[in-house]
Amino acid sequence: MKIPIFIIGKMDEDATLTNFKVLYVVTQLCGLTMIILVSCWVGIHLGGVGGTANPKLEFNWHPLFMTIGLIFLYGNSILVYRGFRNVRKKTLKFAHAGIHLTAFVLTVIALITVFDSHNLPVPPIPNMYSLHSWIGMGAVIVFGLQYVAGFTAYLAPGWRQALKVAYMPLHIYFGLFGFVLAIASALMGITEKALFSISDYSSFSSSGVMANSLGCLYVIFGALVVYLVTEGSYKRKPLPEDAVLLTGVNE
Amino acid sequence: MKIPIFIIGKMDEDATLTNFKVLYVVTQLCGLTMIILVSCWVGIHLGGVGGTANPKLEFNWHPLFMTIGLIFLYGNSILVYRGFRNVRKKTLKFAHAGIHLTAFVLTVIALITVFDSHNLPVPPIPNMYSLHSWIGMGAVIVFGLQYVAGFTAYLAPGWRQALKVAYMPLHIYFGLFGFVLAIASALMGITEKALFSISDYSSFSSSGVMANSLGCLYVIFGALVVYLVTEGSYKRKPLPEDAVLLTGVNE
Repeated sequence: MKIPIFIIGKMDEDATLTNFKVLYVVTQLCGLTMIILVSCWVGIHLGGVGGTANPKLEFNWHPLFMTIGLIFLYGNSILVYRGFRNVRKKTLKFAHAGIHLTAFVLTVIALITVFDSHNLPVPPIPNMYSLHSWIGMGAVIVFGLQYVAGFTAYLAPGWRQALKVAYMPLHIYFGLFGFVLAIASALMGITEKALFSISDYSSFSSSGVMANSLGCLYVIFGALVVYLVTEGSYKRKPLPEDAVLLTGVNE
Repeated sequence: MKIPIFIIGKMDEDATLTNFKVLYVVTQLCGLTMIILVSCWVGIHLGGVGGTANPKLEFNWHPLFMTIGLIFLYGNSILVYRGFRNVRKKTLKFAHAGIHLTAFVLTVIALITVFDSHNLPVPPIPNMYSLHSWIGMGAVIVFGLQYVAGFTAYLAPGWRQALKVAYMPLHIYFGLFGFVLAIASALMGITEKALFSISDYSSFSSSGVMANSLGCLYVIFGALVVYLVTEGSYKRKPLPEDAVLLTGVNE
């Protein structure tokens, strides 16, 4: 009797992992489509990108870099533990910190371009007055604080074990909170840009439909990432090599 | 040795429940402030509400009823199991379905008023062209499908036990997904209305700051609700009376 039960158990676990892999690939395709779509929107409908000499075009880096940094890379950094479950924990921690760092650099560039696009024109456009800017800045601050706390807790210098354990659920909660906030902010950003720049938005012009489709992709990408990292059966199981991390050896 | 361990365990559970209660009260205060704030915004800055004779004022029911229905009541309906943990399960199920029904009725009224405000003016304003309308309608559809599925699964006529168990994680996931989508949609709605109606939005006028503060309250309320219903230690424990539900007696 034991063998079939074992096989069924094994099959269930394999089936779960297969489901995860399928959804993971769908998530990545969704994320890449999102980046292609925002690039096309910027390139075809918003006039492409430019430098400080043309603040209107310099602005266009903002949706592009925010989509790549604060949405695609942020989501992938969260997913890295489950997506590469057979890699040892320590490597995954470095990957998590590294992808987040890249996301942060792109976010900072995206912020510089939007502030430039407000400050450089004559007369300048006021900064930080819209709800998009408030919520977006909130997402960046949550992201930044999480990075500092996560880095000092789990990489260097490392907090006391009890504090590490206590902080982990909050690290996960606020990590996802910042990610969802970034997506909500992107949706508001599209709304703003569409109302400012698409004069025929209400007649279902291709630019407007493209912008709305991009918004829907953000939501689908975000929903998939949150599902993949919160579904209990998809959780990465510790590898034998991970034990050295738990005991503190080699850290 | 056993007694102190038991007391510590008991104390921890009490402390957890106290934390829950404090956060629950904060959530409710936040929700009520949100409703007061949207009422003030509509009353003071958007000119109050009106009937079909004045489509511009009829619109103003939309943010008011959506905030009460699709955000405050939706959130409270999700919270009902944990907020009233000593009430028997069957009563809680009726409360959950009842609050959701009230939320749905308010949502339908809110939708009628916004469609009226687009269709009744001469010339009419096109419907469903903005990202806000797409995401908002998405939230309402998720909410509606969840209601039908949840009602037939857990109230009447009731699905097979295995299906009920299998659907529960999806019911929870899509319930929270619809709730977060409703909040994201509300943030876009504020963005739209602010850009359409607040001519001095960029000079930090009181109407604009009030609208942004309302948006921040939506986020805080949403974040608290999601935290309270996903934190494992706050989960409602089954009561002895609930057993009749599990065995199917009296259903």
